[in-house]
Amino acid sequence: MAKLLTNRDDNYAQWYNDLVTKADLAENSVVRGCMVIKPYGYAIWEKMQAQLDKMFKATGHVNAYFPIFIPKSFLSKEAKHVEGFAKECAVVTHYRLKKDEKSDGVVIDPEAKLEEELIVRPTSETIIWNSYKNWIQSYRDLPILINQWANVVRWEMRTRLFLRTSEFLWQEGHTAHASREEAIQETEKMIDIYSDFAENYMALPVIKGYKSENERFAGAINTYSIEALMQDGKSLQAGTSHFLGQNFAKAFDVQFTDKNGKLDYVWATSWGVSTRMIGALIMAHSDNNGLILPPKLAPVQVVIIPISKNTQQASEISEVAVKIKDDLISKGISVRYDDRENNTPGWKFTNYEFKGVPVRLAIGPRDLQNKTVEIARRDTLAKETIPVQDVTTHVIKLLDDIQANIYNKALNFRNDNTWYINSWEEFTDIIENRGGFIMAHWDGTVETEEKIKQETKATISCIPIDSKEEEGKCIYSGKPSKRRVLFARSY
Amino acid sequence: MAKLLTNRDDNYAQWYNDLVTKADLAENSVVRGCMVIKPYGYAIWEKMQAQLDKMFKATGHVNAYFPIFIPKSFLSKEAKHVEGFAKECAVVTHYRLKKDEKSDGVVIDPEAKLEEELIVRPTSETIIWNSYKNWIQSYRDLPILINQWANVVRWEMRTRLFLRTSEFLWQEGHTAHASREEAIQETEKMIDIYSDFAENYMALPVIKGYKSENERFAGAINTYSIEALMQDGKSLQAGTSHFLGQNFAKAFDVQFTDKNGKLDYVWATSWGVSTRMIGALIMAHSDNNGLILPPKLAPVQVVIIPISKNTQQASEISEVAVKIKDDLISKGISVRYDDRENNTPGWKFTNYEFKGVPVRLAIGPRDLQNKTVEIARRDTLAKETIPVQDVTTHVIKLLDDIQANIYNKALNFRNDNTWYINSWEEFTDIIENRGGFIMAHWDGTVETEEKIKQETKATISCIPIDSKEEEGKCIYSGKPSKRRVLFARSY
Repeated sequence: MAKLLTNRDDNYAQWYNDLVTKADLAENSVVRGCMVIKPYGYAIWEKMQAQLDKMFKATGHVNAYFPIFIPKSFLSKEAKHVEGFAKECAVVTHYRLKKDEKSDGVVIDPEAKLEEELIVRPTSETIIWNSYKNWIQSYRDLPILINQWANVVRWEMRTRLFLRTSEFLWQEGHTAHASREEAIQETEKMIDIYSDFAENYMALPVIKGYKSENERFAGAINTYSIEALMQDGKSLQAGTSHFLGQNFAKAFDVQFTDKNGKLDYVWATSWGVSTRMIGALIMAHSDNNGLILPPKLAPVQVVIIPISKNTQQASEISEVAVKIKDDLISKGISVRYDDRENNTPGWKFTNYEFKGVPVRLAIGPRDLQNKTVEIARRDTLAKETIPVQDVTTHVIKLLDDIQANIYNKALNFRNDNTWYINSWEEFTDIIENRGGFIMAHWDGTVETEEKIKQETKATISCIPIDSKEEEGKCIYSGKPSKRRVLFARSY
Repeated sequence: MAKLLTNRDDNYAQWYNDLVTKADLAENSVVRGCMVIKPYGYAIWEKMQAQLDKMFKATGHVNAYFPIFIPKSFLSKEAKHVEGFAKECAVVTHYRLKKDEKSDGVVIDPEAKLEEELIVRPTSETIIWNSYKNWIQSYRDLPILINQWANVVRWEMRTRLFLRTSEFLWQEGHTAHASREEAIQETEKMIDIYSDFAENYMALPVIKGYKSENERFAGAINTYSIEALMQDGKSLQAGTSHFLGQNFAKAFDVQFTDKNGKLDYVWATSWGVSTRMIGALIMAHSDNNGLILPPKLAPVQVVIIPISKNTQQASEISEVAVKIKDDLISKGISVRYDDRENNTPGWKFTNYEFKGVPVRLAIGPRDLQNKTVEIARRDTLAKETIPVQDVTTHVIKLLDDIQANIYNKALNFRNDNTWYINSWEEFTDIIENRGGFIMAHWDGTVETEEKIKQETKATISCIPIDSKEEEGKCIYSGKPSKRRVLFARSY
């Protein structure tokens, strides 16, 4: 199985694609650009959802559901939004099919043409703010803190499983506030939650920052993002939180009466993460033996594999294994006991390694005799033999160790591949030959940003929040700059 | 608030619509036939999902996700399926918009026409069996027990919030088996789970049965359903489970090698419940004072309302209330303590009654003095005063009582409105003047079924599984019949 995997260092893109399909995470569907998320991949998504949903609710948000269809005219109501989203999208023009006279098939019924075309939502600001209009009259109706778990469609020309697909799953928060300050606070609170989730659950160190004007969400005043470094030296945007100002309130005429009886437009935010995070998870941690999953998001945290030579042994091992399994489950750990007879222990070892199960327990005849278990960790592939009675304590500690180790490994990799660059020569050299995060001065203009992109394919991933003030000169134009920004080639 | 509700006995349809919109469960969107599920309605759906998902997983099912789009030609592959589903559906014909030369808006880019139109899934058998084709070679790959939580679209002409909308949320299970027997077992297992869920969580007594040929799912060999009686005497189908035989395997050429090396087509089932269940929940239990929600699905199970005359009292009451709240929450009960100052206690009483919160606790100055709490139950509106120290025990018991009482009330209503009828005169009289479930003999022919429908608008809800063999004569044709079937007018 592992040998079916292209070597990561030879062809990173192919390695990734092999891994996603062969580990049964997802596959391309017959519908161009749309993926099938298979049960093992979906189980990771469910773990992500459960944790994020908990964090959203703990901060006062509630879930709701808005229609998948958006009237075409809505997209044009916010001037910048239309440029960003009303291009590559799925357009519904008819609502009925009829039997084809010439074949067994069906054809569009020309009489069932919609008066106004409907767009399959690429994002829901417009349809949601059209609803908020009726929900908000006074400051008493604010804030509205709503999140939606949904599918969205953006017709992508070049797609890649999880990272860029025409249909994907996500959550989109849409909040409405009585003041600018409160909306900005919300925007920042949500990027903090995403950052917390990435670091503490995905074991993925991220840089928090805001986007340059060029890279902002279409319709936003400010876009915050979290950026993570992948093992091929490219950057991946893993989540965004937008301060929308009063743009959508104005586009949909949503006003409220404030405490002093004055009418004003409502302040807005939106924020989202998607199944793209699964792609980030894979790209950041996995190796040539297959997936490496952080224990907190692994669908199966521990697998138990029996090794027996005869039925008598099998039954004795099973007794021990089931006891261990039940004990681990009682501690909230997800365990699979794989005693299927049609696969060898060797095949199972390779298989669960490939699937990224963090901890493997093996019990053979000698273990039976010595009352021991062999315990192996996926991240380092290290093995040791421990007494049966210590298994649960040991596993609990090991899962924490693995979670921390995966994070630290990614952090060290990022530290080793973050460059503070002061000259254009170094910049182009690093981008061409090394990759990674480049912290460099920029003169703040769109022109320079675009020229750098044209010449090197590097973009500004973000302007890090904690990038401190520092006098410097733009690496491209030589003009003065007050702080370094984060450059990288990115997904 | 309650007086805004149309009287249930005067106009049941209007009462239902008032309730759904004024209790903030859902509302019609600007997109024809599509609803917005508001946070309070969505919270009920989340509770339903959580419980059903647990039940599916406990029986070996896993979740996955398949594309929302189905190539048009797929719908025609199963002969009966196409007749049922390839009619009223949303058709995507283009994948790009462009700026309108004549206005600020956007128009379809004629160059971005799809080669083959895509249908927004009305149900996913076709796209899923097209994937299963690649997943199944041998009996070792079976069974596949997959469920999907998703949105679907069926272009309905006459819509009603929750009960019939163009877009709705549901789960659809799609399983693949090596034998006919196993697939039938699965079909029955799932209708049992739905029935268990309806009775024990929704507090909704249901009749389990199978559909007449006429009412079967398009493409099924047999369709099981659960049928519930609403308070207006109409029947509502709350869930279905289909034995699909080898129909879809044949349509998509999905064959497997069995244990003896013989090639055979795979056996299939599919089963689903939707946001329609929320409609059933409301229609079955609620009254002229508003919603009545079974405690097991109520987003808020207990509300605590303080009644104070001054700040000193307010703070003393708050101390007691918060203690009670924390104690209830520690027992897994969802509690809201509503100490908002901008609404009177009276307004709150009416509001939470209207929202169907099962238990209300009120604490006033006298309660403070006597160390008591007033406890009121939503189902019967009965109130009593109990010592503070007994609150938690009392609430736990009361929630169980309410759950049981709501169920029993619905069961009694159904018993009082189920008629064993032997003549056509009685049949038409009951249907016209009383409504309810009618158990009557039927000759088993489609012709009779359709004539009865034409003359009375009553259909065969199902052929109940526990309807015992009994010699009789068809109420319409007088021809011999071996068992009674369930007739009703239905949603």
